[in-house]
Amino acid sequence: MSDRPSEDDLIARYFAPLAGEGGLGLRDDAALISPPQGCEIVLTVDGLIAGVHFFAEDPPEAIAKKALRVNLSDLAAKGAAPLGFLLTLALPRDWKPDWLELFARGLGEDAAAFACPLLGGDTVSTPGPLTLSITALGAVPAGRMVPRDGARAGDALYVSGTIGDAALGLRERTAGLQSRDEPEGSRSNAAFLIDRYLAPQPRLALAQALREHASGAMDVSDGLVGDLAKMLRVSGASAEVDIARIPLSEAARAAIAGEPRLLETALTGGDDYEILASVPQGRALAFEGAAAAAGVAITRIGTVTTGQAAPTFRDARGAPMSFARGSFAHF
Amino acid sequence: MSDRPSEDDLIARYFAPLAGEGGLGLRDDAALISPPQGCEIVLTVDGLIAGVHFFAEDPPEAIAKKALRVNLSDLAAKGAAPLGFLLTLALPRDWKPDWLELFARGLGEDAAAFACPLLGGDTVSTPGPLTLSITALGAVPAGRMVPRDGARAGDALYVSGTIGDAALGLRERTAGLQSRDEPEGSRSNAAFLIDRYLAPQPRLALAQALREHASGAMDVSDGLVGDLAKMLRVSGASAEVDIARIPLSEAARAAIAGEPRLLETALTGGDDYEILASVPQGRALAFEGAAAAAGVAITRIGTVTTGQAAPTFRDARGAPMSFARGSFAHF
Repeated sequence: MSDRPSEDDLIARYFAPLAGEGGLGLRDDAALISPPQGCEIVLTVDGLIAGVHFFAEDPPEAIAKKALRVNLSDLAAKGAAPLGFLLTLALPRDWKPDWLELFARGLGEDAAAFACPLLGGDTVSTPGPLTLSITALGAVPAGRMVPRDGARAGDALYVSGTIGDAALGLRERTAGLQSRDEPEGSRSNAAFLIDRYLAPQPRLALAQALREHASGAMDVSDGLVGDLAKMLRVSGASAEVDIARIPLSEAARAAIAGEPRLLETALTGGDDYEILASVPQGRALAFEGAAAAAGVAITRIGTVTTGQAAPTFRDARGAPMSFARGSFAHF
Repeated sequence: MSDRPSEDDLIARYFAPLAGEGGLGLRDDAALISPPQGCEIVLTVDGLIAGVHFFAEDPPEAIAKKALRVNLSDLAAKGAAPLGFLLTLALPRDWKPDWLELFARGLGEDAAAFACPLLGGDTVSTPGPLTLSITALGAVPAGRMVPRDGARAGDALYVSGTIGDAALGLRERTAGLQSRDEPEGSRSNAAFLIDRYLAPQPRLALAQALREHASGAMDVSDGLVGDLAKMLRVSGASAEVDIARIPLSEAARAAIAGEPRLLETALTGGDDYEILASVPQGRALAFEGAAAAAGVAITRIGTVTTGQAAPTFRDARGAPMSFARGSFAHF
């Protein structure tokens, strides 16, 4: 191991260049942040493990970016602006400096792109698979964090972006790689879906609109059907969702047209990292305007209702759809 | 796996009871803290892996407590008071509910004992060994965090508690278990040392004295010799240390008396989780008084000097001691 850098060398070489002001050059035991005046701190943490949450052979930059972005997506859903993050990186014993350089480069690109500097971390060695844990911090004006449990009967339900791409992309990734003789169009559709799986887009631009108008929000990480059920359960409400209104990408529509049972995959699969929000009827137009001004596509998919039942997803004829599997769980 | 609780059930059953106010019952995507007026937030993170940082067969309560305490030790060294922590828990696939119940119990006992509530977390499944990452948050009055790089020539050097117990305890743990025919006294010494390895004591009671009097501080986690060298390197200083003044427990003295080369183990081994601090001469007496009032034993072991050289450790005759291995690295 003598040709390998020590932990201190590794931090100095790969991670110190990514450190924000509060990271103290990663030379202290701890990081320090000064919360913006009048703000509270929102905290979120996600663990990701090779072979469970991503493929060990994914590009190192993509692994790094996804690990940060899934946390940024949580901050966005809470209406928070990023302050920075801490990284625990458990490297398998055969790690390569080239891999780590690309990982740090990807992480640095996203830290800059999303104004979320590295504050600190811990690098350890594991006999197991590559394991990451990122804790991200954000700021919200005091009292203004958007809760998960705020949906009330009558509220409009919105999602950002398109739903199901990542779940279909994961399927392409694992099953579709053999079928190289597909026509050009389906190959580019597959590439789009795989990219949506690899590179989620945290909807930080929507944070202010959510803070100002949403009664409740969460990010969709374990599938729309299961996550909506979770949000309504803690809110003590139910919902009616119009399946025809759920926003699907061209690529997802094409996949579902060819294989209708993939609609269920799209609605129950994980890794969307889009925002699900409830908005009081009286604020719905204002929310739509604020989202448009922020450049984030949102779509009204249904309405919160009274009751404790799981939300009802209705097809174009009004028939409720049932799902074999409500929620994708990484656990 | 159908007899196993889901991730949500598991959180509700084992971890929600540990949640502080800011943890929002662990039912939201994120935690929320309101920083105390006039304070900055100190952040620290440590990853711990079964077979690397602890033994998988250690008592689950002890694993949980050590994971939290190593972070609390960092907060103490920075002069911070705990606000709470976030936990990433990657469970191996054969995890047992009984194990998790004991783990959560130990974590809850220490969260209460050290006033450091659980704020949030992520529980995932790993094909590898049990892996933990804890991010702890603390508060310090703005501008008062004790830095690592503040040691200046002329400052007195102090350590808290006793040094080397954990390294000798780890040795007893791995090598000493065969020798059951030892006399009663050495068995109880071994038990003491092993306990010091398993259950570090975060010196949070010393935080205020450090804030008021220390120019620099860190916690000793990778061995006194290596950690002092790190602190002085970033401070741009050197030091003279009087080995005879380094505080050793009765058990450590007995072990070293029987096997003199264990002195090096004690001074370079890891896991002490004691505080190393530099204090300007003019504040040394006040620091000693404040530490005594806080009930934390501290010992002056040397003096910071000018220069860039590694610190010199001198024996009773004034001869410098050399170490085969400067620092214990988990990495």
